[in-house]
Amino acid sequence: MGMDGYLGWTLAMYLSGRGHEVSGVDNFSRRRNVHEVGSWSVTPIRPMEQRLKVYEKVAGKKITFYKGDLTQSDFTRLVIKKEKPETIVHLGELPSAPYSMIDVEHCNYTQVNNVVGTNNIMFAMHKYAPDCHLLKLGTMGEYGTPNVDIPEGFFEIEYRGRKDMLPFPRQAGSFYHLSKVHDSHNIVFACKIWGLRSTDIMQGVVHGIVTDDMVDDDLLTRFDFDGVWGTAINRFCSQAVVGHELTPYGKGGQTRGYIALRDSMQCLTIAAENPPDEGEYRVFNQFDETYSANELAEHVQKVAGEFGLDAKIWNIPNPRVEAEEHYYKPDSQNLRKLGFKPTFTLEDELRQTLPKLIKYKDRIEAKREAIEPKVYWAK
Amino acid sequence: MGMDGYLGWTLAMYLSGRGHEVSGVDNFSRRRNVHEVGSWSVTPIRPMEQRLKVYEKVAGKKITFYKGDLTQSDFTRLVIKKEKPETIVHLGELPSAPYSMIDVEHCNYTQVNNVVGTNNIMFAMHKYAPDCHLLKLGTMGEYGTPNVDIPEGFFEIEYRGRKDMLPFPRQAGSFYHLSKVHDSHNIVFACKIWGLRSTDIMQGVVHGIVTDDMVDDDLLTRFDFDGVWGTAINRFCSQAVVGHELTPYGKGGQTRGYIALRDSMQCLTIAAENPPDEGEYRVFNQFDETYSANELAEHVQKVAGEFGLDAKIWNIPNPRVEAEEHYYKPDSQNLRKLGFKPTFTLEDELRQTLPKLIKYKDRIEAKREAIEPKVYWAK
Repeated sequence: MGMDGYLGWTLAMYLSGRGHEVSGVDNFSRRRNVHEVGSWSVTPIRPMEQRLKVYEKVAGKKITFYKGDLTQSDFTRLVIKKEKPETIVHLGELPSAPYSMIDVEHCNYTQVNNVVGTNNIMFAMHKYAPDCHLLKLGTMGEYGTPNVDIPEGFFEIEYRGRKDMLPFPRQAGSFYHLSKVHDSHNIVFACKIWGLRSTDIMQGVVHGIVTDDMVDDDLLTRFDFDGVWGTAINRFCSQAVVGHELTPYGKGGQTRGYIALRDSMQCLTIAAENPPDEGEYRVFNQFDETYSANELAEHVQKVAGEFGLDAKIWNIPNPRVEAEEHYYKPDSQNLRKLGFKPTFTLEDELRQTLPKLIKYKDRIEAKREAIEPKVYWAK
Repeated sequence: MGMDGYLGWTLAMYLSGRGHEVSGVDNFSRRRNVHEVGSWSVTPIRPMEQRLKVYEKVAGKKITFYKGDLTQSDFTRLVIKKEKPETIVHLGELPSAPYSMIDVEHCNYTQVNNVVGTNNIMFAMHKYAPDCHLLKLGTMGEYGTPNVDIPEGFFEIEYRGRKDMLPFPRQAGSFYHLSKVHDSHNIVFACKIWGLRSTDIMQGVVHGIVTDDMVDDDLLTRFDFDGVWGTAINRFCSQAVVGHELTPYGKGGQTRGYIALRDSMQCLTIAAENPPDEGEYRVFNQFDETYSANELAEHVQKVAGEFGLDAKIWNIPNPRVEAEEHYYKPDSQNLRKLGFKPTFTLEDELRQTLPKLIKYKDRIEAKREAIEPKVYWAK
């Protein structure tokens, strides 16, 4: 679900390459939503038809595609009824915090799109694919930045002399992140009452652009760099390429988990190939290392230097409301127990990413103004 | 918001009677949604125009009313811009667990209606009434039935040697209850980023039908008794009146908090007249006593006997997925600290309710079949 997106397209080829039969769904909203804010992907993204044709040609394998909107329950039901999938990888959500903060319409669009899409999938699974494994992309951002360690989904606590295993409290920092908190609560409940099985991936920020499947530039996945759709690391890389200062927000102490695109593929595959039990809802905190925004900028600066790019770092006022210095210690054992071995460091991945961006430098230049933050959490 | 509902109409008169200037909003969805499941209110509900006219005549006070839908952001914005309220009491949500469990459409309708309505109110407050106090009706059902005490919204915990004050984890038991969990998360965030002030009322089950303002039967509030819209206690009362067995679900050990309608009015008024600080999000667990479903049935049986009604109790298979025997110890100090004094016991209220239902017994008889559960949590 969400096969036209950054992770969706990459994963479709990755799983197909491993011999899985892959079908995908998308309504192409990401292309429209990025266009709406005056930007585009640094990498040119081909129409889905062309992507599928080129993939078939180079890989000799077919991927099935359905164009449609997951918020239409009839559409979602028909696809699941027809495909009867073993695993649904649900990447079909709006993933932007700033986009959800533009105004009330964008907030509601994000929350309704994400919550209703997931509800429709769960109801259709319950009816037509009750043994299917729902592998759902959440975000590490669901947890916020509490002053205690972050377990994977649940923690045992003692309170006033009694004990219980409880969901770890969520303190998300945007209406987008909140939409994923809402999803998580809905999924826990569906697993409980219907016996669905689900893995809720609390994913860190994914960085990188190239996997082994992208042997032709027509097969590249998207790379967003604007202030609304781009992650901090994508912005820093793009800034370095066009000679713009790297701009961490505020004090730059905001620390998050990060994972390389290729490692993210490894994780999602491990999760898909090791489904949970019937009725089991499990949470994986999916990241490799944690970095502060400043550290991130420094790594980009260093690797950019290797490519002859002289990047300055300039901390700008923070458009978000968030802690700029905080404790951050999330667990991430569950995937490692299933065999996940982080393979690519941040700098490894940067050395793949930057040359690709340099190749498409003109496309960054053309939308240079879109990099700066224009959406503010508070007036 | 939600002035045509059970609590909305009652509170509008109650606050108006205390000298507050009251304006209300409703889209009359409750009337339609109860009709949809083949039922109606035991008490005949007059059209809003008539209600307002009769109220003005007997009380000498005017209540303003806007017909419209809170999920339309333009409408919500216009009302808030025009009224610039000091307090918004948000009772305008779909409040039925079974209704939300009928199918995917009813699930999405409930969650979207509730989440989007609340978002629209918050965005409009932020823009046009930033000092306004949002008094929002949540539910004790947001917490579920954890094996530890339930604090009021937040608890201080120690985890792996570090301490933090965290939101108490939510484990709601229906898509409706989950919609209120979603709201709570959204409201916490809006208070944090915009400095809104809000009281999130985790309300127990409200019982009762009459307040001092209802001097004319044209001013009665609604009383739902069917398997979808009626609470267990409303069903038991109606069953007693028409000679039907009282039917607790399952083992009947499901314990919840309860509060009399008149005490609920006292609580909401105390909360409205004592607003939180700027940026403060506070939680009140609003209930008086806790009872199991079986205890509730026994109290109804006893008071029904005083009116010559011979009620039998018959535990039927539980259509819900829920713990039927569990620990339950929620706090409820915050409202008491502000002066709340529970005034009416369950049996006091039953002695007011049953005669009113006996008067309208024919209306229960006419929809007798609607009392039985027809919505199942799992197949």
